[in-house]
Amino acid sequence: MPGEDNVIYIGNKSVMSYVLAVVTQFNNGFDEVVIKARGRAISRAVDTAEVVKNKFMPGVEVKDIKIGTEQIVGEGTDKVNVSSVEILMVAKEKA
Amino acid sequence: MPGEDNVIYIGNKSVMSYVLAVVTQFNNGFDEVVIKARGRAISRAVDTAEVVKNKFMPGVEVKDIKIGTEQIVGEGTDKVNVSSVEILMVAKEKA
Repeated sequence: MPGEDNVIYIGNKSVMSYVLAVVTQFNNGFDEVVIKARGRAISRAVDTAEVVKNKFMPGVEVKDIKIGTEQIVGEGTDKVNVSSVEILMVAKEKA
Repeated sequence: MPGEDNVIYIGNKSVMSYVLAVVTQFNNGFDEVVIKARGRAISRAVDTAEVVKNKFMPGVEVKDIKIGTEQIVGEGTDKVNVSSVEILMVAKEKA
């Protein structure tokens, strides 16, 4: 599906909050969910993907992982580089 | 090359320590270097890969990223699940 509705942004909440968000999107009919995170939240994004796959939705797999660098404008005009990650999770084909 | 010599394990040191380690392995003649991390060090692994690629070695690219879950035996007989990441960096073909 187009649009950004199937993107879950990882912040400072618990891993289970984001697991629930991802599972809900799949249950709402999305075939793909993208988990995005920056900086220290990257570890939590990986935790989220692993818990969804291993504990809740064995029919979902990690299809692609991209890493990158984003510039954040900090205080004043400072620009800070921060690493980012995108984890693409997809529902496997129903055979 | 076979063996584990081209694996860099990310711990609690600074990102630049690991960047230097990766760059050194490429300069030592490895065509591939694998960056491995678990838990909170995962963000640092991504930082390391991004800094190597963007600041030091434009001829190196991220070829594959795998995530997984490992069991760590904690105190007593407790087992704790921890997320892990492996980032495969390769020297691009010299055209």
